[in-house]
Amino acid sequence: MSTPRGIQLGVGMVGYAFMGAAHSQAWRTAGRFFDLPLQPDLTVLCGRDAAKAGAAAEKLGWRSVETDWRALLTRDDVALVDVCSPGDTHAEIAIAALEAGKHVLCEKPLANTVDEARAMVAAAEKAATQGVRSMVGYSYRRVPAVALARRLVEQGRIGEIRHVRAQYMQDWIVDPEFPLVWRLQRSAAGSGALGDIGAHIVDMAQYLTGDVLTGVSALTETFIRERPLPAKIEGPAASSGLAASGTAEKGTVDVDDAALFLGRFAEGAVASFEATRFATGRKNALRIELNGSRGSLAFDQERMNELEFYDGRSADDGGDPDTAGFRRILVTEPTHPYVGAWWPPGHLLGYEHAFTHQVVDLVRDIGEGRDPVPSFADGLRVQLVLDAVEKSASSGSWQKVAEE
Amino acid sequence: MSTPRGIQLGVGMVGYAFMGAAHSQAWRTAGRFFDLPLQPDLTVLCGRDAAKAGAAAEKLGWRSVETDWRALLTRDDVALVDVCSPGDTHAEIAIAALEAGKHVLCEKPLANTVDEARAMVAAAEKAATQGVRSMVGYSYRRVPAVALARRLVEQGRIGEIRHVRAQYMQDWIVDPEFPLVWRLQRSAAGSGALGDIGAHIVDMAQYLTGDVLTGVSALTETFIRERPLPAKIEGPAASSGLAASGTAEKGTVDVDDAALFLGRFAEGAVASFEATRFATGRKNALRIELNGSRGSLAFDQERMNELEFYDGRSADDGGDPDTAGFRRILVTEPTHPYVGAWWPPGHLLGYEHAFTHQVVDLVRDIGEGRDPVPSFADGLRVQLVLDAVEKSASSGSWQKVAEE
Amino acid sequence: MSTPRGIQLGVGMVGYAFMGAAHSQAWRTAGRFFDLPLQPDLTVLCGRDAAKAGAAAEKLGWRSVETDWRALLTRDDVALVDVCSPGDTHAEIAIAALEAGKHVLCEKPLANTVDEARAMVAAAEKAATQGVRSMVGYSYRRVPAVALARRLVEQGRIGEIRHVRAQYMQDWIVDPEFPLVWRLQRSAAGSGALGDIGAHIVDMAQYLTGDVLTGVSALTETFIRERPLPAKIEGPAASSGLAASGTAEKGTVDVDDAALFLGRFAEGAVASFEATRFATGRKNALRIELNGSRGSLAFDQERMNELEFYDGRSADDGGDPDTAGFRRILVTEPTHPYVGAWWPPGHLLGYEHAFTHQVVDLVRDIGEGRDPVPSFADGLRVQLVLDAVEKSASSGSWQKVAEE
Amino acid sequence: MSTPRGIQLGVGMVGYAFMGAAHSQAWRTAGRFFDLPLQPDLTVLCGRDAAKAGAAAEKLGWRSVETDWRALLTRDDVALVDVCSPGDTHAEIAIAALEAGKHVLCEKPLANTVDEARAMVAAAEKAATQGVRSMVGYSYRRVPAVALARRLVEQGRIGEIRHVRAQYMQDWIVDPEFPLVWRLQRSAAGSGALGDIGAHIVDMAQYLTGDVLTGVSALTETFIRERPLPAKIEGPAASSGLAASGTAEKGTVDVDDAALFLGRFAEGAVASFEATRFATGRKNALRIELNGSRGSLAFDQERMNELEFYDGRSADDGGDPDTAGFRRILVTEPTHPYVGAWWPPGHLLGYEHAFTHQVVDLVRDIGEGRDPVPSFADGLRVQLVLDAVEKSASSGSWQKVAEE
Repeated sequence: MSTPRGIQLGVGMVGYAFMGAAHSQAWRTAGRFFDLPLQPDLTVLCGRDAAKAGAAAEKLGWRSVETDWRALLTRDDVALVDVCSPGDTHAEIAIAALEAGKHVLCEKPLANTVDEARAMVAAAEKAATQGVRSMVGYSYRRVPAVALARRLVEQGRIGEIRHVRAQYMQDWIVDPEFPLVWRLQRSAAGSGALGDIGAHIVDMAQYLTGDVLTGVSALTETFIRERPLPAKIEGPAASSGLAASGTAEKGTVDVDDAALFLGRFAEGAVASFEATRFATGRKNALRIELNGSRGSLAFDQERMNELEFYDGRSADDGGDPDTAGFRRILVTEPTHPYVGAWWPPGHLLGYEHAFTHQVVDLVRDIGEGRDPVPSFADGLRVQLVLDAVEKSASSGSWQKVAEE
Repeated sequence: MSTPRGIQLGVGMVGYAFMGAAHSQAWRTAGRFFDLPLQPDLTVLCGRDAAKAGAAAEKLGWRSVETDWRALLTRDDVALVDVCSPGDTHAEIAIAALEAGKHVLCEKPLANTVDEARAMVAAAEKAATQGVRSMVGYSYRRVPAVALARRLVEQGRIGEIRHVRAQYMQDWIVDPEFPLVWRLQRSAAGSGALGDIGAHIVDMAQYLTGDVLTGVSALTETFIRERPLPAKIEGPAASSGLAASGTAEKGTVDVDDAALFLGRFAEGAVASFEATRFATGRKNALRIELNGSRGSLAFDQERMNELEFYDGRSADDGGDPDTAGFRRILVTEPTHPYVGAWWPPGHLLGYEHAFTHQVVDLVRDIGEGRDPVPSFADGLRVQLVLDAVEKSASSGSWQKVAEE
Repeated sequence: MSTPRGIQLGVGMVGYAFMGAAHSQAWRTAGRFFDLPLQPDLTVLCGRDAAKAGAAAEKLGWRSVETDWRALLTRDDVALVDVCSPGDTHAEIAIAALEAGKHVLCEKPLANTVDEARAMVAAAEKAATQGVRSMVGYSYRRVPAVALARRLVEQGRIGEIRHVRAQYMQDWIVDPEFPLVWRLQRSAAGSGALGDIGAHIVDMAQYLTGDVLTGVSALTETFIRERPLPAKIEGPAASSGLAASGTAEKGTVDVDDAALFLGRFAEGAVASFEATRFATGRKNALRIELNGSRGSLAFDQERMNELEFYDGRSADDGGDPDTAGFRRILVTEPTHPYVGAWWPPGHLLGYEHAFTHQVVDLVRDIGEGRDPVPSFADGLRVQLVLDAVEKSASSGSWQKVAEE
Repeated sequence: MSTPRGIQLGVGMVGYAFMGAAHSQAWRTAGRFFDLPLQPDLTVLCGRDAAKAGAAAEKLGWRSVETDWRALLTRDDVALVDVCSPGDTHAEIAIAALEAGKHVLCEKPLANTVDEARAMVAAAEKAATQGVRSMVGYSYRRVPAVALARRLVEQGRIGEIRHVRAQYMQDWIVDPEFPLVWRLQRSAAGSGALGDIGAHIVDMAQYLTGDVLTGVSALTETFIRERPLPAKIEGPAASSGLAASGTAEKGTVDVDDAALFLGRFAEGAVASFEATRFATGRKNALRIELNGSRGSLAFDQERMNELEFYDGRSADDGGDPDTAGFRRILVTEPTHPYVGAWWPPGHLLGYEHAFTHQVVDLVRDIGEGRDPVPSFADGLRVQLVLDAVEKSASSGSWQKVAEE
């Protein structure tokens, strides 16, 4: 760039697969559409394989490369560490980064175990006292339609919430010949659909309601228990764990293909959740519906620019029952959250925009000295629910969600 | 009618509220569009209050009136008893009618208790040996889109079923001032949303999959625990228990407002069910989705002329992945179940048509000497699931569904 | 029926094909759900072929049969003549019936020519002075969602109307082997898609806006100019002209397969119309959208229980722009037009219900001494537009719609 | 960037308003997701006001600034001129750039007059002989769903095309107080809705069919003939001409608010077009439907990640009529056009992605020595149709579209 753009925020990103690509796009783009107090600089990308990391850095636009994440903690030009590596590495990296005074953006799930998540929360709270900020990457909160839904709930537009109904449905492993990628291995991924996509709907449900789940009843299922071992392949598609080809040899799937659970919220709502990779034809269908005493809201990530809102007020309460109906709000108006920085009404945003919004909010929080949300504590609250789900699925009984 | 229309089938109907109106329309209409081996005759309507029953008979087109259902059993001009009275009366009437050699059409749920349902099945099986037929009124099976869905499942179009996802959502008691009508009283209704609408989705799930639920995990909730006692009002709206006005005095709601449960099918599918009267904005949203190894199906009773079908076959298997997508089948083609007797393509059918189809199938089965479906045994299978749901909701644990 | 139901209204119906079946169902059903001042009696069905007419009468529930429509005019037990025969017979029958003092319900289009239509209007106006009523059967006006749309327009909910956008799309003759049935012959049908389905959208547009078209610019097209001559087949499907099989011999199609036209309304709105039988996959897609200065309305007959309404008011005007969106009103509430007589909310109505509503309104108008709408004059207004469309399509120039 | 990324392609962009922002995002992003033979370099941004252009360059990521577009033609580091200035400047800039040996990407419409457009085509054809490439920016062709639609048409999946039905509906000037911005002034914008958005649907219709319009019949309307003169405001919103505030003084609107036209294609299809800024509630609803002898396609830019496809083949032809229905293809599969470079299935793309795809194709064409499409000749073909529309709207008669 020819011209100085104010104080920079040096970013070091660990990992460069699916999430790394999404985060890179966000870091590159945020300042091009939004006014930021600090300008993100794509300072360093970190990956264990120097050649691959170098190629990724060139492709994604990072200035330099490291092969050991610890190197990021000692670099003066890195102010923030962005953790995009698999879940089993989150705790170690994030805690060390925070202790080194680096702000941290950590991909979800916060960790693979509750113990790790608790340690991360402790580290984040300690660091916050020094002005070091942390955020967990539940990016769907920053889809404009989701943020608008939260605004409407806060305004009391749907009243007291009775029902939450959430599904996250995909179908990428319906084929029994789809190989045993790392996302299907407990050692790397922690769990299957539950931690990968179930985590998103738990976070979104708690975010939208402003409430927490207190207990669950669950079942999990692995429909295909043996799969071909994966062939070695190259490129981001491979590392994403979402596309691959298999070999003749087979291995055991030790994570859930689907997790279903019922739940109760502290303030009285009841809920139904379903996370599955076997919903043939549903590609990335994160759906959530809230029914309240005055109205309802419904969202589907496959139509992420739309929010459905039902105004159920009686005529006495200002409603118009004769014309009541779920309205399809195209969430592309300048008054809608985040939208004003982008295009005119009716011009859609895509998947990666939520990551850009995440960066925008994080950089503003850092610049203006606020603690970002979702915090690590929010991330822990999700882990506690997932943990209860697994326990309930094992025991066949209702399981209370542990306190933080 | 001026002209003889062949052998008649004399019908005696017990009850004349919401279901009575729907059944009357079906008996009047079936022979006008379909060729039937016997012509239904609206012989006698039975209701305890002679004046009201007489008015209803005149309105709905019945030839005569009785005030005691036992009188129907001795009339030679009654060949079939149609039981549309509340659930707590079903067993006594249906069993007596079968023993008297009358065919029986019994509204759902089959009974309010499993014991009653078992006795009814025994009576039905005994009667069947004498050529006396019985059917339980899960009318939604005869919505053309639902029948088409079953046909596609039978043809293997969606392969092995992995997921069933069913909701029946209404919102007619969201207002806390809605009074304590009989449908909200355990003594008359047996249960709340569970038996009223939950029964439908259990039956539909078992019908569409051709499989049975073996276990469940459930929660039930009563959001509004006290409601105004109902004012005395007249007319069918009142007797339907769906519309009413209240008094100043309050009473206790002792049925569920919502019932949510997870389940497992014998052949391996997992399922999520939700029946609620608190889904603000959802009026009669009976929804079901099935995901299988080769495709998916989705249905919504609020768009009952449509069936969504996803053909998920690979190219090797004859599929065309590039154009895969949920297709909105407008189920109004002459080749679709029941449709040929009605209107040209694109001309919709309504709620009551399923009742007409029910009568058509029943009369044909009687005329041609077949046992109709859904049988009382099918009705019992639903009751056993509902019973397990209630037990699981009480215990907080997984509950096996009892054998018939 | 065993019981007297008040004063009867004897109906004589001419024709018994598709429309005859729909009208019969309406006459049979109206009094079963609605309170009527007179009870329709299915007195006599008239058809030229005694055997076929007799079979139809038995099937559809008519008491007696005539083979010459003139016989109806002299029967004392016939108070109303229902004209369901092809368009080229309407004028003669309707005028004679009115002159004989019979009320007339005449299927649309009112006539095949403007001259005939004018004569019918004159006869209707003369008869009206004697209390003899007439109505033309634009039944779609009585779909509850359409009637609700009109109510909202009248209430000013969409403000000043700018745009009307209407299509009536079918696809039943896409196959070039579909035979040359009477609906594809100018001598019997008058025109093709234009008069059959284009007439409906012209009437609906004029009805919903409360305005009249003053000029049009049109094109018409016949994609398949030769078709197999039809085989002789039996049954209602054949007589509907909608389904048939062909022979080896071919004949010339002399009507339009599709008619497209632009128009201007007296009060300033502009409009686009399209009627076609070649919209592959669209079965009975009568769609209309109105855009006004304060809001919009959209309707699709393939989802006839729904009305889409967009409230476009500014915040100053009582609107809520942040939640603005097309709302899907499920037009099944008791406060919606006609709905209160039927089922609870969310229970759909079908195609034939609009015919029942037509009968209800007509019988009430007769009983209460009002002139029904749509009047023959309304029917003429449609014919004048269709006439201008044909002239414009021939001349390639803008064509004014003639005054009545 | 730390690392060399191969041969660069220096870009000079003229204009920096709405289109400038979209193009900048495309130039920045294309190489981050796609493999390109040349790496775009955001070399210089050109704007008349040095301060504003400088601020824009910093914001959007351009290296340097010029205030006279002629300066770009002499810079060695500029290989391509990207013309994003208003339509009345296109011809002069584009022709000069081509003559200077610079590749040209020119925003649509190609020009404000047919004469200008013809001169541009001549310049482009001459330049092409020297390997200098040109493209007109009908970016919607590169929405994946649109490109997939074209692929399906080319494969014969919908057979012979009968109908094209296209609307481009917006509502941003419904309010009469919306001021007289440059887009509402003939001198700057050439026309109103017609040239701005009508041009898009004409191009898309010709692209998808692979056919050309030969004649049209049109009407245009200006609903609000006087509007407040605009207040001076700053920023991209102002320069986009899409948002503004007004003053007390009024001026005359001399462009169309809406343009409607019928058309005929060379190969026999008939068409209906509508471009309007008065479709209340429709924000950016570019819709197109094609009906063919074997199937249909439908697209709506407000749901731009979806394509609806109806497979209308008979059973003899490999179809399955019983399950025929419009299928909602979520155009997010790796095998769909452009999608493989982005995210996993079900993860949506947004408005600006089409601009990125435009850059990708253009850069590849340049690198690989091909003439890009849409060519200036394609752009001229659109202008000729728009010209015929205006003539027909004036004359009230059918208007042939001129030959190129």
